[in-house]
Amino acid sequence: MAITADDEPGRADRNDVRRANLALVLRTLRERGPRSRARIAEDTGLTKASASSLVAELEERGLVRGGELEQTGHTGRPGLAYGLSGATYGVGVEIGVDYLSAVAVDLTGTVRLSRRLALDVRAAAPEAVLDAAADLVRQTVRTTALRGCRPVGLVVAAPGVVEEGTGRVRYASGLDWHDVEVGAGLRRRLARHRFPVAVDNDVKLAAAAEWACGVAAGTRDLAYLSGEAGVGAGLVLGGRLVRGARGFSGEIGHLPLDPTGRRCACGRRGCWETMVGLGTLLALAADPGDPVRDPATDVEARVAEIRARADAGDPRTLAALDRVGTDLGLGASVLVNMANPEVLVLGGYFALLGDHLLAGVTRELAARVIAPDLGGCRVALSTLGFTAAARGGAHTALERVFTDPLSVD
Amino acid sequence: MAITADDEPGRADRNDVRRANLALVLRTLRERGPRSRARIAEDTGLTKASASSLVAELEERGLVRGGELEQTGHTGRPGLAYGLSGATYGVGVEIGVDYLSAVAVDLTGTVRLSRRLALDVRAAAPEAVLDAAADLVRQTVRTTALRGCRPVGLVVAAPGVVEEGTGRVRYASGLDWHDVEVGAGLRRRLARHRFPVAVDNDVKLAAAAEWACGVAAGTRDLAYLSGEAGVGAGLVLGGRLVRGARGFSGEIGHLPLDPTGRRCACGRRGCWETMVGLGTLLALAADPGDPVRDPATDVEARVAEIRARADAGDPRTLAALDRVGTDLGLGASVLVNMANPEVLVLGGYFALLGDHLLAGVTRELAARVIAPDLGGCRVALSTLGFTAAARGGAHTALERVFTDPLSVD
Repeated sequence: MAITADDEPGRADRNDVRRANLALVLRTLRERGPRSRARIAEDTGLTKASASSLVAELEERGLVRGGELEQTGHTGRPGLAYGLSGATYGVGVEIGVDYLSAVAVDLTGTVRLSRRLALDVRAAAPEAVLDAAADLVRQTVRTTALRGCRPVGLVVAAPGVVEEGTGRVRYASGLDWHDVEVGAGLRRRLARHRFPVAVDNDVKLAAAAEWACGVAAGTRDLAYLSGEAGVGAGLVLGGRLVRGARGFSGEIGHLPLDPTGRRCACGRRGCWETMVGLGTLLALAADPGDPVRDPATDVEARVAEIRARADAGDPRTLAALDRVGTDLGLGASVLVNMANPEVLVLGGYFALLGDHLLAGVTRELAARVIAPDLGGCRVALSTLGFTAAARGGAHTALERVFTDPLSVD
Repeated sequence: MAITADDEPGRADRNDVRRANLALVLRTLRERGPRSRARIAEDTGLTKASASSLVAELEERGLVRGGELEQTGHTGRPGLAYGLSGATYGVGVEIGVDYLSAVAVDLTGTVRLSRRLALDVRAAAPEAVLDAAADLVRQTVRTTALRGCRPVGLVVAAPGVVEEGTGRVRYASGLDWHDVEVGAGLRRRLARHRFPVAVDNDVKLAAAAEWACGVAAGTRDLAYLSGEAGVGAGLVLGGRLVRGARGFSGEIGHLPLDPTGRRCACGRRGCWETMVGLGTLLALAADPGDPVRDPATDVEARVAEIRARADAGDPRTLAALDRVGTDLGLGASVLVNMANPEVLVLGGYFALLGDHLLAGVTRELAARVIAPDLGGCRVALSTLGFTAAARGGAHTALERVFTDPLSVD
């Protein structure tokens, strides 16, 4: 709903009204695509004069640009259609176990640039990792500046437990990091760029990406499960990413599913990760010495090899995938029972091997979900691959612009 | 500010603005208490003329009433203070296993009336239960009408899986109900009262009550666990009750915690309910034939007897409570890891025996929650007792008024 200055109810000053209306125009363009100022006025309930003034300000701030002539009806002059600008973008950086990646996504949702850098993050000192990440961001900014583009924010995806306000990684078992100041470290290194830097959990950001641009884009109630060495969950409920009181939600990998189960790296027994983490699948599918169990080989190549064996009908591989698929469904049923999502998106290696895992997953869900018809939940495989977390970071960095267009110069 | 950037974009008309401003005044009175029209104007940023006109309309609709003279400063004329009306109320009805209860809560949050009717719901035909529930509502309406009060809506709390839109109870194991049309049945029986009737899961409504008026009132991220024959969860995340895509969220009782565990009534093994349901506690604490295991005795009396034995230091009772407390913490850790709530509220029998369960709960949470310091989560015992679900229903019925005051004649 548009707010007009006359009706404006709150203690609001004119800036609040302006901000809300600028945001309304931006969101209208995002949801409905480029259109003339007359149609923007029509869609929002703003007067034509207001719509024109708002569009002009958004154009000045580099958030909107005029494009093609648009003929809206059969009569009348065609209007110039305005759309979101491709020149303003958010940056997402992911700190993975053996890589850093950066993605730039512009306001239209287009990926402008994607880079990936192989790096043994576990072996490197955290300060060296932050140096490399900052370099990656600087390169991204330099490359895109040549094309007249500019960044409005950076959100870093890190594995493990991330403290929301500070951007400190409290604990990341995959990296063996404890209390690493990712937020402060990158803010210091990138100070001269003057855009905000935030840090968030990689699985939460991957869920945000699924919601923004994945197979289940726009679904109001979405659950995301990432399969890598560990397992994490991200939830979008009622159209909002769940963060929890301190940003620590989504820790599902250590579901205690079996008191006499395998010992987990965390020291407990029978954690879900010990049943469905990538290492377990590889151990079930192949003996030690088999190349798929060689940690020196790129993980995607090893997953691809497993996939090739399964496609060729190798019985041991298929049995391993059935076992893991069943246990994946077992743990996933907990999430589906708790959250009643409309869609469960499987990401990470679960997506890459999805068609061999789905039978076990759906069988187990059917047996364990209490609501009828899985509560309406369908299972989908992520198509974002290993870029999901970085893309989610970039989208999250852009959210601020859609909420508060005045935050951009 | 009444309308913020978060609100849905759309075509504004003057009714929308009026509605938003009426709601703003109502919420201001709820949050800050009775006050003069001048102070309402000050608090909301409305002009004095607008504030007066809005208050007059709310008074006409029976939502606000003028009361005492209020002297706001040292100078000037005192103004008449306006507050929420105690004459407009929401009704909550709970269908329990062995009782029906009704609660009327007025706009000020005061419980105007509370009734409880012993009824063996499991043994009765569903139609007879709905007859009795409708009678209970009629009595409530009649009694309060004598005092000049009127209801604006009814929300029924039912155990089990409730379909959101229709109010159909799809499945309630405690009642052995399958596809009972609670919503339609009560709407038909209460048609002449012309207020809306909704049905929701009892645990979700109890969580709503905790959020509205319980020990953790107003907490943005709240997890609620109810302990009865079964266990259910209710979540408030980011200040909103989690419903799930079809209203089926919160099914936590069948967490599969032990593949070789006890057989559950649902047919599966090792469900959390088999470890922490009330029946399990009673079986651990007493031999068959002991009065606390006599299903003919009121459940509250049996829990009180367990409490008395524990307070007296009976070793078997204390050992049973320690066992159940530990397993309660085990399952609760799943919820805390998933949702990262600021507070975990224990309800139902967990609250009544809480001080004997807490040691086990907190020990197990400390061992199993991944986030540092339990992610900031504290554990609290519900003080609402067995009225929680009905109260949550009444509060939920009132929510519509606070969102859309124009919905009331």
